[in-house]
Amino acid sequence: MRPAFYISDGTAITSEVFGHALLSLFPMEFEHHTISFVETVAKAEEAKAKINAISKRSGEKPLVFHTFVNPEIRAIIDSCDAIIYNFLEHFVSPLEKELNVQAKPKAHRTHSIHENSYDYRIDAVNYALANDDGSNVTNYADADIILVGVSRSGKTPTSLYLALQYGIKAANYPFTDDDMDELKLPNFLKQHKKKIFGLTIDPERLMDIRDNRRANSKYSSARQCRMELREVEKLYKKEKIPFINSTKFSVEEITAKILAETGLRRHKY
Amino acid sequence: MRPAFYISDGTAITSEVFGHALLSLFPMEFEHHTISFVETVAKAEEAKAKINAISKRSGEKPLVFHTFVNPEIRAIIDSCDAIIYNFLEHFVSPLEKELNVQAKPKAHRTHSIHENSYDYRIDAVNYALANDDGSNVTNYADADIILVGVSRSGKTPTSLYLALQYGIKAANYPFTDDDMDELKLPNFLKQHKKKIFGLTIDPERLMDIRDNRRANSKYSSARQCRMELREVEKLYKKEKIPFINSTKFSVEEITAKILAETGLRRHKY
Repeated sequence: MRPAFYISDGTAITSEVFGHALLSLFPMEFEHHTISFVETVAKAEEAKAKINAISKRSGEKPLVFHTFVNPEIRAIIDSCDAIIYNFLEHFVSPLEKELNVQAKPKAHRTHSIHENSYDYRIDAVNYALANDDGSNVTNYADADIILVGVSRSGKTPTSLYLALQYGIKAANYPFTDDDMDELKLPNFLKQHKKKIFGLTIDPERLMDIRDNRRANSKYSSARQCRMELREVEKLYKKEKIPFINSTKFSVEEITAKILAETGLRRHKY
Repeated sequence: MRPAFYISDGTAITSEVFGHALLSLFPMEFEHHTISFVETVAKAEEAKAKINAISKRSGEKPLVFHTFVNPEIRAIIDSCDAIIYNFLEHFVSPLEKELNVQAKPKAHRTHSIHENSYDYRIDAVNYALANDDGSNVTNYADADIILVGVSRSGKTPTSLYLALQYGIKAANYPFTDDDMDELKLPNFLKQHKKKIFGLTIDPERLMDIRDNRRANSKYSSARQCRMELREVEKLYKKEKIPFINSTKFSVEEITAKILAETGLRRHKY
């Protein structure tokens, strides 16, 4: 497998996203290596030694994706026995011309605490945990969004992703078997109807997920899953609650769709 | 403020990371817009209308960061009244030459459920929640990592980030006031010592965070915070537990440092 390195003076998340987006276009497997926090010349020399050793071992030049702005460190990385892709360099000078402003590269500004979104995000994580799975229905005035749906339709991971990535306070409330006889919005939800967003899922997928938790139970039976989903989707339509089917989507995709539909404001970009 | 658009046929996370990394080099504020899931010509025309309307309103051409591979959609976006930055195009043909393989662009492969990491990540989120804050000390055999530290030193957000982003199962265990008289590793942790990773934090920052939760309490007092941190750091050193100080770091940075130090394998890149 061709080795690929993602390197930066910070988390290397940007280099990873950059390299991964490109490599995913190729029908091949790669051997991934991340080297983060290369903040000094000494660490750059260490990274170079590692890259060169792997180059020698594999017999193929590694692909190196980096975002260094410090010229001294850049020169060391650029001198590795590797193919170097620096995605900043192609865009900085056109942007400088367009903006008529000179770039002021600082070390790893993105994904760092200096983005000022830290407290929002930690508060939002605490909020999501305290208001997970209907555990506290009296706090919904503070929610930015309230996710609803049957058990195991994706509410909790989505709430946590909204909190961690964007500082959005997401509560979530499950509709359970007990609610199903005559499913309607409870008063504590009705009061905050504008914040409600529904999730649904295909019955087959729900059965699989539930069966992994409680095999051969009523909870995971085809009949029960179908009934719960039918009732919940009927409610969404009756109450005009926006909803999406999470079956074929990752947590990033569900979140992106929710943000697009609701226009919720993020506390972090 | 100059408008900036991040557009793609998927979540637009790659376009956001790409644009944000570039724009953060400039000492200016931008007005951010994301348009995700532009999967059809009709949606591309809608996006174009939106971009052109904002161009007209602001009197300045918006900056548009995109990653489209579909030529029809690309042509529509490229024809907007805007400055277009397409970060794929600069790198795809050099990579094709280097790899001697032709790129096979598929629509939004990254950040989608097709990355095959979905189940790992959801399992890891469930694991993190079930093993948060010492709530279950009998499950540590299944942990990839066990974060330890005093209350409010960053354990929970870090556990969740490890789970959501990388599918890594992280338990976390708090050392509390009751443990402090003669702090040592409990047996259920000693058994899994290789998995333990410590967090610490500056006393002033800890006091702030705790004071927001319980103002003027013993819990948030300078004396208590200093004592707990002193004891915990002494334990880390005595037991040779790797640890980092989370004070000046975002959850991404803490996670990246932990991954670098432990060499933990990710289930998602």
